[in-house]
Amino acid sequence: MTTSTSILARCRPWSLGDGPAAVAIDVGGTTVKAGLIDTGGRMIDATIRDAPEPGDGAAGELVLLIDEVVEAFRRTHRRIRVEAVSAVIPGIVDDDRGIGVYSTNLGWRDADFASMLVRRYDLPVRVSHDVRAAGRSEFSLLAPETDALMITIGTGISAALRLGGAMVTGGGYAGEIGMLPVTVRDGAAPEPVERIASAAAIARRYSERTGFDVQGSIDVVQARDAGDAAALEIWADAVEALAQVCLQATALLTPSVIIFGGGLAEAADLHSDVASALSERISYLPQPEVRAARLGYVAGLLGAGLLTREPGAALRSGEPQAH
Amino acid sequence: MTTSTSILARCRPWSLGDGPAAVAIDVGGTTVKAGLIDTGGRMIDATIRDAPEPGDGAAGELVLLIDEVVEAFRRTHRRIRVEAVSAVIPGIVDDDRGIGVYSTNLGWRDADFASMLVRRYDLPVRVSHDVRAAGRSEFSLLAPETDALMITIGTGISAALRLGGAMVTGGGYAGEIGMLPVTVRDGAAPEPVERIASAAAIARRYSERTGFDVQGSIDVVQARDAGDAAALEIWADAVEALAQVCLQATALLTPSVIIFGGGLAEAADLHSDVASALSERISYLPQPEVRAARLGYVAGLLGAGLLTREPGAALRSGEPQAH
Repeated sequence: MTTSTSILARCRPWSLGDGPAAVAIDVGGTTVKAGLIDTGGRMIDATIRDAPEPGDGAAGELVLLIDEVVEAFRRTHRRIRVEAVSAVIPGIVDDDRGIGVYSTNLGWRDADFASMLVRRYDLPVRVSHDVRAAGRSEFSLLAPETDALMITIGTGISAALRLGGAMVTGGGYAGEIGMLPVTVRDGAAPEPVERIASAAAIARRYSERTGFDVQGSIDVVQARDAGDAAALEIWADAVEALAQVCLQATALLTPSVIIFGGGLAEAADLHSDVASALSERISYLPQPEVRAARLGYVAGLLGAGLLTREPGAALRSGEPQAH
Repeated sequence: MTTSTSILARCRPWSLGDGPAAVAIDVGGTTVKAGLIDTGGRMIDATIRDAPEPGDGAAGELVLLIDEVVEAFRRTHRRIRVEAVSAVIPGIVDDDRGIGVYSTNLGWRDADFASMLVRRYDLPVRVSHDVRAAGRSEFSLLAPETDALMITIGTGISAALRLGGAMVTGGGYAGEIGMLPVTVRDGAAPEPVERIASAAAIARRYSERTGFDVQGSIDVVQARDAGDAAALEIWADAVEALAQVCLQATALLTPSVIIFGGGLAEAADLHSDVASALSERISYLPQPEVRAARLGYVAGLLGAGLLTREPGAALRSGEPQAH
């Protein structure tokens, strides 16, 4: 189980660079992780809470939850003066304006988190996308390459992209690769890649094929390792689908590295199977290095922390109100 | 027929911005266009020559041809002091190093044009890719949008991409989208988009289907306009294939505009058919504006000229030798 202690243990080795003392928040579909970062860029405290209930009130509840977390950090660390807040959230996120455009999981639409947070704190506030934040930390801490793509596989599939040293946001929509159509078998109709290769799809396809109700994609990986024919086929389909997406990205952008993130990818050596499949299709294009993400479930939180270290980026500072 | 007069007439309206007087060269598979640009960024003279014969000697011959053109401009315009040279070439081009990595049409491999040109002129030299140059001019002169994609359709298909205001080069390989696999009919095997939607493929597929040997894709467009069933089907396949590529690019990058260039695209309203097909597939992603290129056959030459106006970019300056 992920606890505040395990989050802190995984974050502590990393320095995010000098900057303001800051609270970083990573909002997931079921939990919210938060960390307190000191001026030297080290995480010195962390906490984990349940995510707000999905629905109309979720955005407001999230702001209250962030408030509570910031207050708790302030109470525990009286000598630290929090001078920045950043939150990364799921769904479609407009980084520049700090708006949660929408989230199917949490149920908000056009939630102006930047304004809501700025109203509570007279501090620079940053809002970004959870997958983009995970990419940001994998790229900044572990991939010095200028051009890099990170594909995160979970319930859906989405991506973070850095080109020429800058994150590509596309007004919040860049990296929405789950809908890319792929054809995994000759004669099949094209299907969105996330219906074949997301963790949810791998589990669902295995259940449909075998009638055996698996808990999740990791069960399918175990069946594959045991030589189960259906699991091997479903895995091969996922690998083929992801190789096609990697080929599309390589032909358009030629990233020097493609990183696979998410629990399944990090557990199951997905990247090496995809790298082999890609190398068969890549023709004269330069083959990117394909590897697994290394920061695990704290990648988004570290990425949120990194945002408070980017003075050139659009930080928000409002009028003091509640505090 | 394209003549020096028609080139000049199409280029003259555009100002490329203040900068050095410069010679810009656009190398195609069959012709080489060249223009003389004054310090105010206007093209004041132009010429067109036959391209070098493909083969081992092509790179060297091209350098001699450029030399001849530069000398001719200098003789005709004695008051103008040429202070920069730029050449855009086909194939795979490493802009940063000024190297023609390879060209199937002209037959060179790792031809170091930057060094060869710098050796002849003690001037800043820029070398870039013809399709990227065409994109550069369409974007800079006609598309103020930050994020833009231009797809050029000719014998093959390739693309130019600008993100966050900067051209994406990928070491020369970015935009090699001709090889992207698409599936135009359920049950068909995926095929590279350029085998379905390039001008050459449209002509070839029509000839194969009907046994009627057409001169080029424009003949197929005329047959389509006359209601010919085979032509309508082949056109629909090309539109579908290109819509899929646009969807791939939109999901990855969300460009605000996608421009179709090349003779076929500019003549046949390809962009509006692709825009309709894309809008049916785009789901929740923002639909980019899809339009035809407007600079026609001088886009590459104007883009070569623009390169001499970018002081921040890697200009080459060598030791004087021949001159």
